[in-house]
Amino acid sequence: MRRRALLAGGAAAGLGAVAACSAGSGGSAPSEGSGQPVVPVSFTDIGTGIVPFHGIRQAGVTTEPPAHGAFVSFTLSRGTDRAALGRMLRLLTDDAVRLTRGEPALGDTEAELARHPSRLTVTFGFGPGLYRAAGLKSPVADLPAFTVDRLEPRWSGGDLMLQICADDALTVTHAQRMLIKDARPFGAVRWVQRGFRRSAGVHPAGFTQRNVLGQLDGTANPRDAAMDTAVWNPDGSTSLVVRRIRAEIETWDLLSVTDKENAVGRRMVSGAPLSGAAEFDEPDFAKLDDTGLPVMPDYAHVTRARQTDPRLKILRRPYNYDEAPDAQGRPDSGLVFASYQADIDRQYLPIQRRLAEKDLLNEWTTPIGSAVFAIPPGCAEGGWIGERVLA
Amino acid sequence: MRRRALLAGGAAAGLGAVAACSAGSGGSAPSEGSGQPVVPVSFTDIGTGIVPFHGIRQAGVTTEPPAHGAFVSFTLSRGTDRAALGRMLRLLTDDAVRLTRGEPALGDTEAELARHPSRLTVTFGFGPGLYRAAGLKSPVADLPAFTVDRLEPRWSGGDLMLQICADDALTVTHAQRMLIKDARPFGAVRWVQRGFRRSAGVHPAGFTQRNVLGQLDGTANPRDAAMDTAVWNPDGSTSLVVRRIRAEIETWDLLSVTDKENAVGRRMVSGAPLSGAAEFDEPDFAKLDDTGLPVMPDYAHVTRARQTDPRLKILRRPYNYDEAPDAQGRPDSGLVFASYQADIDRQYLPIQRRLAEKDLLNEWTTPIGSAVFAIPPGCAEGGWIGERVLA
Ligand code: HEM
Ligand code: HEM
Repeated sequence: MRRRALLAGGAAAGLGAVAACSAGSGGSAPSEGSGQPVVPVSFTDIGTGIVPFHGIRQAGVTTEPPAHGAFVSFTLSRGTDRAALGRMLRLLTDDAVRLTRGEPALGDTEAELARHPSRLTVTFGFGPGLYRAAGLKSPVADLPAFTVDRLEPRWSGGDLMLQICADDALTVTHAQRMLIKDARPFGAVRWVQRGFRRSAGVHPAGFTQRNVLGQLDGTANPRDAAMDTAVWNPDGSTSLVVRRIRAEIETWDLLSVTDKENAVGRRMVSGAPLSGAAEFDEPDFAKLDDTGLPVMPDYAHVTRARQTDPRLKILRRPYNYDEAPDAQGRPDSGLVFASYQADIDRQYLPIQRRLAEKDLLNEWTTPIGSAVFAIPPGCAEGGWIGERVLA
Repeated sequence: MRRRALLAGGAAAGLGAVAACSAGSGGSAPSEGSGQPVVPVSFTDIGTGIVPFHGIRQAGVTTEPPAHGAFVSFTLSRGTDRAALGRMLRLLTDDAVRLTRGEPALGDTEAELARHPSRLTVTFGFGPGLYRAAGLKSPVADLPAFTVDRLEPRWSGGDLMLQICADDALTVTHAQRMLIKDARPFGAVRWVQRGFRRSAGVHPAGFTQRNVLGQLDGTANPRDAAMDTAVWNPDGSTSLVVRRIRAEIETWDLLSVTDKENAVGRRMVSGAPLSGAAEFDEPDFAKLDDTGLPVMPDYAHVTRARQTDPRLKILRRPYNYDEAPDAQGRPDSGLVFASYQADIDRQYLPIQRRLAEKDLLNEWTTPIGSAVFAIPPGCAEGGWIGERVLA
């Protein structure tokens, strides 16, 4: 955890470390699915933890995701040209530097709310429209349409995106407010998606979390050096795909545990692949059952999503959402699915195509929003995010 | 904290205690306004903490409020008579007993999500309509209209209310889902209001929290024995007023700190009354400034809300909300203001009347929802909530 945050920040000091009893890394982190009883976790520093903002890579990407996240997308207003973008990004960088340190923003009107950074990160993403406004070629393009998509404009697209994450929801609210206030002379809020993961202190750092469908979600994510290779370009840039994916919980709830497990290719309780016994066992796609069929069904989510080349993996960093149910009590719940990878075309798209084509889990998940953002490199103290793109 | 939870539950065992460095009670709990630097808090058991469900008083009232709360209000369907109410409440009580213990509900379709109770409480409230449906006289009645009200039906009223609180948002989501599933044969979801306070581990237990306006909110709440007197009837019942109060943050942000302080009668940083120096100093309403005016302005929120008779105080247990801002970036934020008191007419109404009549804070707060619920006594193991009302 400490190591990851440092790598992410590219800085060597200043992290208010979360003293959780992490059992380490390297694909063998424990999870609540390990069959062990749930044990109390000792945790400190939930309010005071600081993730360094500066570095050649932005924080909030390979940083262990804290409990609360807000994805805020803006549509730039007509007048926002390259020079205005530079002014805006200087301003927002300054806000982010201060807020992530637990200090008020310069124009902070609720200064007292800035005192608990709670591992706050602010990650800047640039949509195709930002490059257009700056007269530059965009390194990212909207995803092609997939047959599974039921995209709604109100959850899609955006010229500028701020991903704001912290272990405290009030900290996220305050940072979001201050950043929006400073951004709005330059554009309109297009959408805000807030989500949550397990609270800090529920799991040791690095544990696999469950999502709203009850699945252990994150098991096969690349870790450590493999994560770095998959996510970062040499210049410190990366890219983000945000998909709002509704979970069809009403029909999911009608499934037997076995059916749920076949849809994914992993056990509900342990997260183990159907071909194995423990969460971090490598799935064996060649293994056959008594009837001669693959134990890992070839329509299962994991089978379809599998990518063995470590350089082509993606880093999933999703948050759950749960809005008010309708009068009949049907949930409006799902994932703010966020995927980081060095190159969307080479890494994300092939996986997404395979899933759209055939993935049993599609029956219970519906993409209703989609957006892509280039994540520019981080900056050094005194610099600003985007300086190498726009200056 | 431990003591409070025990009193609340009326039980003497089973609490997975939160080992926070509480500095005690008695109106002198420290707060982030005490002028001391923010110090790391050591916290354990955020996932495994259990608040006992059984007791003559329901949990979730005088229990220290955890970080996340959902208020779920139902409109009973026509056929739900007294016998049906009994069936529904047996079912929901059983769900609540299991879930608050960290066990799946009987019909749990996401059993794995039940494993982290995180101090989960489920508190049952009965609106006037529930008594009507049962052919009984209601102990609570809708509040009268106040001139400050801008009530919207979508946030108002309800026959049955479940207040679901826990330190983990996924735990709240799961409990909410299970309870709604079992309640919906008997009624429709009328509204759901979710909110948050500081995450567990940000403050020691008992600390005063800040709300979305940046104020320390909760300072003058009754504590310990005084809290018990104000809240509980001898039979273990109480009552709840839920007001959704929008914070007019755009205009609030334009105020100077002094203007903000005058609106409330307390300092922003320390929470001290304007007549004093520290948060828990008693306000001195007779104290005059150089010009002969009261130091505690008589239009200030605290001056108007003041109630010195401990038996007539109310226990405020609000949650912040922060929904998506509009395109102009104006927040949709405020309080799910929740007030517990033994008797609404004697305790809540006089305060609310004084505030509606004259309270400078009204300029920056707008009630947009209102509902009242009787909180019936708790139950012993094997019993069900409402048994003494309906059986
Ligand atoms: C609501 C939608 C989704 C849900 C509920 C979901 C759930 C899961 C689960 C439970 C696993 C197995 C455990 C793990 O390794 O994390 C998994 C694996 C994976 N998912 Fe998804 N997923 C969703 C959408 C997507 C999307 C949109 C993509 C990318 C286009 C994706 C890519 C992957 C990948 C690459 C793996 C790892 C496969 C492996 O190598 O084992 N998922 N997902
Ligand atoms: C969004 C709306 C509201 C906000 C932001 C707010 C804020 C505050 C603040 C900052 C304090 C001072 C610190 C404290 O003792 O907690 C306070 C005190 C108080 N408020 Fe409110 N309040 C709101 C609505 C209400 C309502 C609707 C009522 C009841 C009808 C109420 C009753 C009280 C009481 C009884 C006190 C303690 C007064 C004393 O004895 O010192 N408040 N409130």
